Amino acid sequence: MADNKRNRPIGIFDSGVGGLTVMAEVIRHLPNENIVYFGDVGRCPYGGRSKETIIQFARQDIKFLLEHNVKYIIAACNSVSAVALETVKNEFDIEILGVISPGAKAAINYSKNGRVGIIGTVATIGSNSYAKEIQRLNNDIKVFSLACPLFVPLAEEGYMDKEATKLIAHDYLKTLIDVDIDTLVLGCTHYPLLKNVIAEVMGDKVKLVDSAEETALELTQVLDNNGLRKEETEEVIHKLYVSDVPDNFSDLVHKFLGSRINNITRVDITRY
Amino acid sequence: MADNKRNRPIGIFDSGVGGLTVMAEVIRHLPNENIVYFGDVGRCPYGGRSKETIIQFARQDIKFLLEHNVKYIIAACNSVSAVALETVKNEFDIEILGVISPGAKAAINYSKNGRVGIIGTVATIGSNSYAKEIQRLNNDIKVFSLACPLFVPLAEEGYMDKEATKLIAHDYLKTLIDVDIDTLVLGCTHYPLLKNVIAEVMGDKVKLVDSAEETALELTQVLDNNGLRKEETEEVIHKLYVSDVPDNFSDLVHKFLGSRINNITRVDITRY
Repeated sequence: MADNKRNRPIGIFDSGVGGLTVMAEVIRHLPNENIVYFGDVGRCPYGGRSKETIIQFARQDIKFLLEHNVKYIIAACNSVSAVALETVKNEFDIEILGVISPGAKAAINYSKNGRVGIIGTVATIGSNSYAKEIQRLNNDIKVFSLACPLFVPLAEEGYMDKEATKLIAHDYLKTLIDVDIDTLVLGCTHYPLLKNVIAEVMGDKVKLVDSAEETALELTQVLDNNGLRKEETEEVIHKLYVSDVPDNFSDLVHKFLGSRINNITRVDITRY
Repeated sequence: MADNKRNRPIGIFDSGVGGLTVMAEVIRHLPNENIVYFGDVGRCPYGGRSKETIIQFARQDIKFLLEHNVKYIIAACNSVSAVALETVKNEFDIEILGVISPGAKAAINYSKNGRVGIIGTVATIGSNSYAKEIQRLNNDIKVFSLACPLFVPLAEEGYMDKEATKLIAHDYLKTLIDVDIDTLVLGCTHYPLLKNVIAEVMGDKVKLVDSAEETALELTQVLDNNGLRKEETEEVIHKLYVSDVPDNFSDLVHKFLGSRINNITRVDITRY
């Protein structure tokens, strides 16, 4: 029998474990799909690297997933979506969905006063990709972008509800409060873990947009529109591949994925 | 004329820019020496990676420096010194000095009550290398080790004297205060940038040991003992090589080196 495309896995890649927040949302919205996740833990974070390096890493990550016969790829990494996706999309014969576009569309839908904030890594913010995408779709929206480099290490260190995290969030976010945004895009896969602190600092009137969830919702729609949902009769398999396995790695996976996964394999990504 | 060994440069490598605090101390104590620095910015931090990966990266870093005809190598990276140095030392025909041994020796000299604290990255602390080296030299010393993963991003973000940094330092260091140490080794090249906060939290009675400075002092002694100081007549050249050049890189270099350097070249370290 010919390869039935709909039963092939969804491929997700990220610079590390952050993209597991996207995988968690995909599992929540598409519990029947097989998933192959690649986390480039051995070379994370991509955020502070040059555009050229991020493009090269993204190519290798995609080549790896293609070997697993995936039907669709999600670039769960904001840095990749921001600076590399346009380039690598044209080099491969597969659909690749980034996290920028779903987050941007959702922000436009939610905002009532037309003032949207974006927070992310230095690379994501420096690329201006969220702002460009929002303004391409609706030129009337005013976008305010801000890099918050300490949020990633704080999330990884489990500093979710500490006083220090609130102070740092205040330091970072006060400029966004001052400009009266009503919608804030969490433009980094790690940030959903700090959602409570960010919500507390921003106040009730600001709607937080979780790019991970918006991406999973868009993927669901795309699969439905193209008849690509997996048959329910098949067993569901989730596989996790990483370029390095540091100490305490399974705890970190648990923190970001929200559940345990036993199927973890180390691969040499530099071969791709 | 034959290659005059004493006039060859000193090679320093690190996972990134942190080792520039070691370079700064070498320049302060040996202002006449030529230096070639390699910073593996494209693959930093080494701290959270597996031992196997750190060894492989260290080999490549050393091969790169050997191409520059260096007379002596400093592994300025605590993670390398902790988990890779013993292995790679035997593979190359050159002296390699890590930062663990000088820091350990200094701590023994300074401590009066025989209770020494060590702070560093997860990899450095997990390796237990400082404790082993101190107890190899003096088995009566009690060593208390503690990983402080947020100190590196705080230093890179310029959070030297913020309230949040003090709170985080308190969180981390209270266990060391409770056990009554009188000496604390800053076992990570980034930590000298947070010296003031750490000193304030630890109080007057605790002596801070800066591994960077102790390493520069040991290098000075080794060069003197072996007649390897460079002739004063020669021009002094400092070269900086990196595996990636992110945005704002020269500001980061300035923060860690304490001075500007124009001679920055990007190299592909995976070729080594």
